[in-house]
Amino acid sequence: MKADCLLIDCHAATMAESDVPYGAIKDAAVVIADGRITWIGPRADLPPVQAETIERLDGRWLTPGLIDCHTHLVFGGDRSGEFEQRLGGATYEDIARAGGGIVASVQATRAASEEDLFLSARVRLEGLKATGVTTVEIKSGYGLDRESELKMLRVAKRIGREGGVRVCTTYLGLHAVPPEYRSDRSAYIDKAINDMLPAAHAEGLVDAVDAYCEPIAFSREEVSRLFDRAQALGLPLKLHADQLSDGGGAELAARYRALSADHIEYVTGAGVAAMAKAGVVAVLLPGAFFMLRETQAPPVDLLRAHGVRIAVATDCNPGTSPVVSMTDALNLACVQFRLTPEEALAGATREAARALGLQDQAGVLQAGRAADLAAWDISRPAELAYWLGKPMLHARWISGIRS
Amino acid sequence: MKADCLLIDCHAATMAESDVPYGAIKDAAVVIADGRITWIGPRADLPPVQAETIERLDGRWLTPGLIDCHTHLVFGGDRSGEFEQRLGGATYEDIARAGGGIVASVQATRAASEEDLFLSARVRLEGLKATGVTTVEIKSGYGLDRESELKMLRVAKRIGREGGVRVCTTYLGLHAVPPEYRSDRSAYIDKAINDMLPAAHAEGLVDAVDAYCEPIAFSREEVSRLFDRAQALGLPLKLHADQLSDGGGAELAARYRALSADHIEYVTGAGVAAMAKAGVVAVLLPGAFFMLRETQAPPVDLLRAHGVRIAVATDCNPGTSPVVSMTDALNLACVQFRLTPEEALAGATREAARALGLQDQAGVLQAGRAADLAAWDISRPAELAYWLGKPMLHARWISGIRS
Ligand SMILES: [Zn+2]
Ligand SMILES: [Zn+2]
Repeated sequence: MKADCLLIDCHAATMAESDVPYGAIKDAAVVIADGRITWIGPRADLPPVQAETIERLDGRWLTPGLIDCHTHLVFGGDRSGEFEQRLGGATYEDIARAGGGIVASVQATRAASEEDLFLSARVRLEGLKATGVTTVEIKSGYGLDRESELKMLRVAKRIGREGGVRVCTTYLGLHAVPPEYRSDRSAYIDKAINDMLPAAHAEGLVDAVDAYCEPIAFSREEVSRLFDRAQALGLPLKLHADQLSDGGGAELAARYRALSADHIEYVTGAGVAAMAKAGVVAVLLPGAFFMLRETQAPPVDLLRAHGVRIAVATDCNPGTSPVVSMTDALNLACVQFRLTPEEALAGATREAARALGLQDQAGVLQAGRAADLAAWDISRPAELAYWLGKPMLHARWISGIRS
Repeated sequence: MKADCLLIDCHAATMAESDVPYGAIKDAAVVIADGRITWIGPRADLPPVQAETIERLDGRWLTPGLIDCHTHLVFGGDRSGEFEQRLGGATYEDIARAGGGIVASVQATRAASEEDLFLSARVRLEGLKATGVTTVEIKSGYGLDRESELKMLRVAKRIGREGGVRVCTTYLGLHAVPPEYRSDRSAYIDKAINDMLPAAHAEGLVDAVDAYCEPIAFSREEVSRLFDRAQALGLPLKLHADQLSDGGGAELAARYRALSADHIEYVTGAGVAAMAKAGVVAVLLPGAFFMLRETQAPPVDLLRAHGVRIAVATDCNPGTSPVVSMTDALNLACVQFRLTPEEALAGATREAARALGLQDQAGVLQAGRAADLAAWDISRPAELAYWLGKPMLHARWISGIRS
């Protein structure tokens, strides 16, 4: 067997579904050729291999490269000033009156050049990469006009070319109604569906379509119109659902066989059952839950009972989740939502891949999958969810290329 | 004016008490000579200076180097397995029966060599340093016999010599009763007070003395005996107080004019008043609060009303606060305890220095203080408490030496 690279002296948390926790292989060997894993197993079983390079990992653990399957990584400005005002006693109304909230991010994003957006997102990306991330989903939704939405998505695609990560782009035109359409929301919705989405798609900028379904954002009927159009274009769907109230978002996602329903703190039993039946992944976002000081956690036991797949993501965004560490997100998910470390890690690998439609390509260490890996200075996989803020990453590989 | 170093093109959050938020100086200059700040002010006012090196900071912000004034950084093993068991449904009793809890850390610490303890602590230290920390307090308390307590404190002192941070050591012999003394707790307390403490002090290993005052740990009477001895040795005092219940710990700390009372979730109004009168700093530990899912926050409004100084620390420890990022600790303090970002940053600089008795040496950028600084890639100081997991540090200086 010829190979580009052979990794030895390591343990592998393959995250393959298995009776063994973490799908673990103690004293493993991994063979990489042409950007893919071509063999993985116990080193004792390793067939003869001629590898260009052999890397000894000194007993470190390998995992699939982490996948952050829900982010708003590209935006102008930040909202640390607003964070400070709120802690100083300002109400949400005070801040909205002063031009804060999502409107502030929309204005800053519209005002920023592609270059500025790229540079500021790349700084945040370094935080994710330092915690083992090899794939990032990035949403639009702070542009809210055609040119600005396309600008955000172009920046996201550029991050995929130049940033040292794989990127999946998601069109989120129905994130909020922009200020200039406040008195004519249906005109904005028409534009987002019939103008902005097709334009972004025509430029090859859209891997999936998402919307914010919540009484303070968009109704199920409005989202349905977007989803119909997206499906006509052959695009997969995702949904911000039932975060602040039960709005039937999970059922809507299930009806459209969306890849994922995200947040779902307030999902009902019927919503969970519908998700299970339709194979919709639950993407849990513990950073927003923490920053908003929410008290109703997503119904994890119910998700487990129905066999709904659970992913975990940072939701990195300037308003409600300024989180740029995937391992911090794992910790927040375990402490707040009582995921086990194994569930959390599966949620940042195998299930996150599923939430992006990449389940045949990434998220698990097995022959045939892309050689996206992370090597860690840990003595057991649970450490990845146990520490808050500890640098544990030794190296990342994307398509077999080490960085 | 001659100088070793001149810092320009920067803004300074001096954290000096002032009517200006953060004691900020826009477009500042800092002059460093012989390890101290010899001048700081608006660049426009800078007197003629002959500096060996001039460093331009491209508009970055300077703060005092951060001070983590409460850690248990040195320990053997970790407790990620226990974290995983709890999330898998094991109770605290199950874990204690299986030899878990603090006993596991004591056994691992006793079994570890000085070299092993040094190397594992240094990895955690890198997390703190990467978030701007220049001074760390490190407690003993996982040895619980003379040789092991001294070993921990020697490792802490070595970190101060070789680790690239200043270290303050704290003797915490009254952290728990070790297993071999369960049937004779008073014999252990005698030993901790009359044998272990004097031995550690004689070796120059003790900068302060601390105890864990809680019904599940040590009573006020037991702590008083320790404190009497410590005072006879001329050592300053600290106290783990009122974390899980109101045990009168704050009043005890005040009676002995301790440097700080730490945790204090359950402190009463009388306790706060006593702290204010005696000048005891309140050290808030939001990592433990988070990991333990506590619901009663320390009474921040009451502390403010009484003018009690508030510090913030990681409490880095393997059982209840595996937190190794000072900026994550700032975020947790703001989100959970509603500190303002300015209060949190003061708590990690000026007030943390006070909690260690270093208020004349560090914690504030002003002429005469040690040149311990951090430079940050931020556009305003509030960002230090806003982001979770974002790498923001540009450089650190300790005694004017850049790293
Ligand atoms: Zn989102
Ligand atoms: Zn402590």
